[in-house]
Amino acid sequence: MKNFELYNPVNLVFGKNQITKLSSLISKDQKVLMLYGGGSIKKNGVYDQVKEALDGYDVVEFGGIEANPEFETLMKALKVIKEEKIDFMLAVGGGSVIDGTKFLSSAALYEGDDPWEILAKRIRTNKGLPFGTVLTLPATGSEMNSGAVVSRKEINKKLAMGGPGLFPQFSICDPTVVKSIPQRQIANGVADAFTHVLEQYMTYPIGALVQDRFSEGIMSSLIEVAPKITADPSDYDAAANFMWACTMALNGLIQKGVPTDWSVHMIAHEITAHYGVDHARTLAIVLPRAYQYKFEEKKEKLAQFAERVLDVKTGNIEEKASHAITAIEEFYHSLGIDTKLSEYTEDYEGFAQKAAESLTQQGMVKLGEHGDITPEVAVEILEKSY
Amino acid sequence: MKNFELYNPVNLVFGKNQITKLSSLISKDQKVLMLYGGGSIKKNGVYDQVKEALDGYDVVEFGGIEANPEFETLMKALKVIKEEKIDFMLAVGGGSVIDGTKFLSSAALYEGDDPWEILAKRIRTNKGLPFGTVLTLPATGSEMNSGAVVSRKEINKKLAMGGPGLFPQFSICDPTVVKSIPQRQIANGVADAFTHVLEQYMTYPIGALVQDRFSEGIMSSLIEVAPKITADPSDYDAAANFMWACTMALNGLIQKGVPTDWSVHMIAHEITAHYGVDHARTLAIVLPRAYQYKFEEKKEKLAQFAERVLDVKTGNIEEKASHAITAIEEFYHSLGIDTKLSEYTEDYEGFAQKAAESLTQQGMVKLGEHGDITPEVAVEILEKSY
Repeated sequence: MKNFELYNPVNLVFGKNQITKLSSLISKDQKVLMLYGGGSIKKNGVYDQVKEALDGYDVVEFGGIEANPEFETLMKALKVIKEEKIDFMLAVGGGSVIDGTKFLSSAALYEGDDPWEILAKRIRTNKGLPFGTVLTLPATGSEMNSGAVVSRKEINKKLAMGGPGLFPQFSICDPTVVKSIPQRQIANGVADAFTHVLEQYMTYPIGALVQDRFSEGIMSSLIEVAPKITADPSDYDAAANFMWACTMALNGLIQKGVPTDWSVHMIAHEITAHYGVDHARTLAIVLPRAYQYKFEEKKEKLAQFAERVLDVKTGNIEEKASHAITAIEEFYHSLGIDTKLSEYTEDYEGFAQKAAESLTQQGMVKLGEHGDITPEVAVEILEKSY
Repeated sequence: MKNFELYNPVNLVFGKNQITKLSSLISKDQKVLMLYGGGSIKKNGVYDQVKEALDGYDVVEFGGIEANPEFETLMKALKVIKEEKIDFMLAVGGGSVIDGTKFLSSAALYEGDDPWEILAKRIRTNKGLPFGTVLTLPATGSEMNSGAVVSRKEINKKLAMGGPGLFPQFSICDPTVVKSIPQRQIANGVADAFTHVLEQYMTYPIGALVQDRFSEGIMSSLIEVAPKITADPSDYDAAANFMWACTMALNGLIQKGVPTDWSVHMIAHEITAHYGVDHARTLAIVLPRAYQYKFEEKKEKLAQFAERVLDVKTGNIEEKASHAITAIEEFYHSLGIDTKLSEYTEDYEGFAQKAAESLTQQGMVKLGEHGDITPEVAVEILEKSY
């Protein structure tokens, strides 16, 4: 096992009717900026619940944060934060709204000239403007970690940031919101969380017994809950398991002491940056081909996954490992998610090279648990993903 | 799934040579009280490592905190804290030293006349004197939770306390210490952690998929690692898995959203209070009989344990559940732990009634996940444990 540090001070408030606790979580003397996305919270009742809980507070609103939160939009929100002298932000939404809020948390206290530098220069944030979240879309785990991803369309970039100053003070996770989420986004959430676990698990054996069992446990749970939550999003128990699995998939716990990959995410970000394809779907496009390419390096963990998660008891390591890759791709398909780039765009010729150039520009030239996913390798993986 | 809140701000620093980080974890202007137990840290090198890391600090020492930390001893330490105007405590030891330090954290800021009230009146601690820990004995999980248990021999009491003010600021867990731990204490640690998981898992099904998988994962890991760590405590990987499993068994995570039992602990505390038997061994005495007594209520989870942890695929629910109880008792035996009170003392006649009286005095009259373990039931369980 590798050395590690685990620190996660988020106060996670999970369950039914927890939004009413907002008034005990935010002090009344703070001026609050409430951030949200395209307005779905006004249809599903969350907006009203939050406003009611914040009755008597000085609240400013900023809506319209889009999926894959856009730098230009966030810069408008930053202006509001400064003009209105905001003390505390409340992100009400999914991973995009929360990630956007994390960028703002950092940018609000950034002393440089251009907040884009936080992303472009990979500056870690040790202290940010305080914020909390009300989660409306289980998927990214952003509600209980200190990372974020922000896009900038004008230059086709999607970049990551983070730091210990970017943990939410609290996150309210009420599974009853799941019933109002469109099927497409539920499928994305399951695929996203499942892939998060794979990025932290599917490397090579290092004898980390508990971490492996936890990762396998989250994936088993997602496989078990996926058909239930897809069939009936108003099934509270299914929704609660879905939501909790998504949070645990990326709150930092399962990666402690083990090697992690994340090359699939870095390559897949390029697809979203170029084509605007949903994040989860880009992962499903890249992952099966990446695992085929790295079959020799990953086959032992692939086989372990087959044994423990899929209950495959026969065959040698290679057969079990192949079975695992097929089953993972079939799991994406079972969620209604296509796993070939050509199923999303006709304009894919030459994309692999563009993606490789972008990765090179960002210094992402040694990805994966062995640092051997070069931009050239990314080209090979992406060309097989067409 | 039940509603829950998860909050655990402990900065956990895990791995080889991590004690050197003490100087970055404690600010130099703080006067430090270093607390430890019977002196084993002076033999295994931990004392020297800590002193070296704290070179240049103003450090006062208090040694001699015993297993099942004793109120009278801790009151002496409290005197030192007040006389020396201590700012920060560093617990260097196992669960007993850490639990004792938690009591001191609370007592140092307690405004009542008699700190015993914190235990006797079950007063929650919202703010304590800050402290960190260097763990030398994996078992109780105290390094990453906010609970403690303190004994007072003169009145045969062993009482629990806790509160959000009692999380360590940091805990350093270096698995290399395991090689110096006596076999008896390693066995106790495995049994203790294993039983902690059972108290949070072996109740009734509530459809909490991730929590169940996590609990099963910790227990599977402990079963896998137990023979390795017993055979060779200098096996670093085995030691690291043992240590991490113990921490995860009782840091609050696996109990979130699920019913918990804890009646075994409450009844077993009475055995330690009366006979001074090691905590882990008292659990092994009480648990099998408690599960036999509550067979109908627990049989579904017992069967699930048999299926998933023991890989039992045949038999009906009752058969699998019986198999589970037998296997748990055999696991204790495999660690060299006896599971009958008569194997620890000849003076057991009438003890069950005394224990029941003590439980009644403490108001523990409705224990277990259904609140149906009355003092009368405790008598029945204990008499079968003779």
